[in-house]
Amino acid sequence: MNTQDTIVALASPAGAGAIAVIRVSGPDAIAICTPLFRSKRGKDLSKQKTHTIHLGHIVDGQRVLDEVLVSLFKGSNSYTGEPTVEISCHGSSYIQQEIIQLLLRQGCRAAQAGEFTLRSFINGKMDLSQAEAVADLIASDNEASHQIAMQQMRGGFSNEIAQLRQELLNFASLIELELDFSEEDVEFADRTQFKELIARITKVLKRLIDSFATGNVIKNGIPVAIVGEPNVGKSTLLNALLNEERAIVSDIAGTTRDTIEDELSIGGIGFRFIDTAGIRETIDVIEGLGIQKTFEKIGQAQVVVYLFDASLSTQASLPEGEKYKSIVIEIEKIKNQFPLKPLLIVANKVDQLNKSEIASLQRAIPNLHLLSAKQKEGVDALKAKLLDFVNTGVLRNNETIVTNSRHYDALLKALEEIEKVHYGLDTDLSGDLMAIDIRQALYHFGEITGQVTNDELLGNIFANFCIGK
Amino acid sequence: MNTQDTIVALASPAGAGAIAVIRVSGPDAIAICTPLFRSKRGKDLSKQKTHTIHLGHIVDGQRVLDEVLVSLFKGSNSYTGEPTVEISCHGSSYIQQEIIQLLLRQGCRAAQAGEFTLRSFINGKMDLSQAEAVADLIASDNEASHQIAMQQMRGGFSNEIAQLRQELLNFASLIELELDFSEEDVEFADRTQFKELIARITKVLKRLIDSFATGNVIKNGIPVAIVGEPNVGKSTLLNALLNEERAIVSDIAGTTRDTIEDELSIGGIGFRFIDTAGIRETIDVIEGLGIQKTFEKIGQAQVVVYLFDASLSTQASLPEGEKYKSIVIEIEKIKNQFPLKPLLIVANKVDQLNKSEIASLQRAIPNLHLLSAKQKEGVDALKAKLLDFVNTGVLRNNETIVTNSRHYDALLKALEEIEKVHYGLDTDLSGDLMAIDIRQALYHFGEITGQVTNDELLGNIFANFCIGK
Repeated sequence: MNTQDTIVALASPAGAGAIAVIRVSGPDAIAICTPLFRSKRGKDLSKQKTHTIHLGHIVDGQRVLDEVLVSLFKGSNSYTGEPTVEISCHGSSYIQQEIIQLLLRQGCRAAQAGEFTLRSFINGKMDLSQAEAVADLIASDNEASHQIAMQQMRGGFSNEIAQLRQELLNFASLIELELDFSEEDVEFADRTQFKELIARITKVLKRLIDSFATGNVIKNGIPVAIVGEPNVGKSTLLNALLNEERAIVSDIAGTTRDTIEDELSIGGIGFRFIDTAGIRETIDVIEGLGIQKTFEKIGQAQVVVYLFDASLSTQASLPEGEKYKSIVIEIEKIKNQFPLKPLLIVANKVDQLNKSEIASLQRAIPNLHLLSAKQKEGVDALKAKLLDFVNTGVLRNNETIVTNSRHYDALLKALEEIEKVHYGLDTDLSGDLMAIDIRQALYHFGEITGQVTNDELLGNIFANFCIGK
Repeated sequence: MNTQDTIVALASPAGAGAIAVIRVSGPDAIAICTPLFRSKRGKDLSKQKTHTIHLGHIVDGQRVLDEVLVSLFKGSNSYTGEPTVEISCHGSSYIQQEIIQLLLRQGCRAAQAGEFTLRSFINGKMDLSQAEAVADLIASDNEASHQIAMQQMRGGFSNEIAQLRQELLNFASLIELELDFSEEDVEFADRTQFKELIARITKVLKRLIDSFATGNVIKNGIPVAIVGEPNVGKSTLLNALLNEERAIVSDIAGTTRDTIEDELSIGGIGFRFIDTAGIRETIDVIEGLGIQKTFEKIGQAQVVVYLFDASLSTQASLPEGEKYKSIVIEIEKIKNQFPLKPLLIVANKVDQLNKSEIASLQRAIPNLHLLSAKQKEGVDALKAKLLDFVNTGVLRNNETIVTNSRHYDALLKALEEIEKVHYGLDTDLSGDLMAIDIRQALYHFGEITGQVTNDELLGNIFANFCIGK
């Protein structure tokens, strides 16, 4: 990856809009742009101060391409840590392309995906986990994932890792120093202090590793299977949940109520509701296939909501023990199939029941959530129960959360090595063997922050960025 | 239209990208943004110089929304002529919306379509025809339409009108002054000079009105009907024309060679090629309908290209007079139906003919254009012939071209009044009657530049803009 090139790309989204921003970065950015920019006041762009804005025309010889605003970033005072020029032009695709083509002819190279952020990393403006957070930030579509990405981008996560790494590095140096004096049997590294550090690192690593479960659901949304026959009120429930919250525009084709998946943001957390049919006893082949599909979807979900119409169950004039039999059987089936999956049993349309009917319902089905989606009763309580499945305390306390599986892997490997070091300390392992384990742990810490890296890893990470970032 | 409000809108295209730009403009723009911006270096935004860029965070109370670059435009030194803040944030739709929502809560109003440019007009930063050119510029998708919009935006067109209007206004004042002294029979306005001015105005108006025919085709592209049966080489011809030129991404569904319309840019001018079937003599009802459709399409086109396969015509061993009979008949039919429509007759695949065959072909069909689309022979000459249908001389000479039908209407009306004035001068019409005609002409001039305007007109013009411009 050549960082001597001056690179150019459209930084604003493709397509027509009021304005578009073209970003030029690299050692020659200002030298290339200066002759192409004819200032309104006759200013020489290269002689202007950093962080200033200039009005003028982009010219290709005698041809005027556009009236633009040019933002100037000199020295290392830019996103990339290189001289940078941002051209804010009129937002037609034609003009964007003409200006980019002109810059390419004048010696720029088209930037690859994520190359501006890659340079920011290479030039020490951010570490690798901060760079990765930039992509997460752009992809974030709800409050929680946005907050985590912001926190990671501001270095909360990697600062902690970098500090522990530094402390560990100090001990590693002392222990390696001991090896040089191995004949003399000296101990430069205070073993008590070292044990204390290893305990501290272990605690942090375990906390971060544990946070990944939360981080992962926050990043990707929590899949919730709603099991329920047509007309039990699924649409009304989704609308009620949606009511005071922002709807996430889903990527899944069609986002109306009658599609298979709905995405809602509840308390800033994304939930994906997967609609499934009910599970009735049947010998019919086609219905049997339907049940199989329902079970498949429940398997994919992290939470199951079993929704039924409480009003229908009371219409049949059956003895109390029989009234909810089919529902109890369905619930049992789900529990048998997925004994560890959180299950929320929700009785809808309870506004149509009188007190004694509700009492009888609650006797028949324990741990029941009462709901009237239409009257919006029990909706907030249901939201709270759904949020309970996510460890939102972590979020509220602004704790560091790991959302990146690459970080998760490195943390797991670091913990493995740290536990070896711990075992070595307990068993008075020789310094030379312990030093190897410590170096391994340092390596995995370094993978997260980018102190240890290689071109292939960087290629993989930045390939997921968009061009222009 | 309240210009006391501070307005906000996304200025970059909607959707995800590396960065997005949110524009805030109005008297309170800086006051609203200052408390929401936490500078990296602890700077107070409101105390910074105009045309400077600042790095920091947008905060909503304790919540950090994004790390952004803020561009500051103070006083009337901005696009709108009002204090303006542009926030360059990370390009996720979520972040864009959160920042815009925050600004709305803090007292901004969502900008209407074109409202930033409307304010620029109201604040005297540009006249009305320049403001209209901004929308044309964003819509421009080829060199010619881009060049015309740039020229109009830079005031080439309206400067000319404004200057003539000023001269006419001076004479109007003198003639109206004469009316005050009507008893005394004085002449303040030199009739010879006035006649000279009227002649000059008439000449300019006629030139501008004439340019509209060119301007219109440049703005909208020139529809060309290609009449030709399948396999005569239409696709090869379009590919050959396209070869060294930029392809315009067409809005019409599908832009591959087998669609009905292809848009090409030739010499910077947009051409829309409409594919039609041939016209053969037939009594078949369905074929008859096909011919009717072909005639319809020819009717819509400004130029007709009749393309046939010259190699096929020579395969039949017919006497020379008979060989091209069906083609000659088809051409005659088109000429009879559309006697005034420019018709280019093109013989393709001439590389498969020998010299005597070509000579015999040219005897049978006069004014024939010889082409081998496959061998790329005759392609440049065909391009030149197509361009001849557009008055490209106007473009090359950087002359002012009218593309806007509103301007065209006003120019026609102004010319009508100027001709009345001219007649009045020739027939020694009384000053008071002439003054009315002059005032009418002035009115129509003013309509173009926006000196005469009303809310309805402005509403119509700016409704066609995008939001954020």
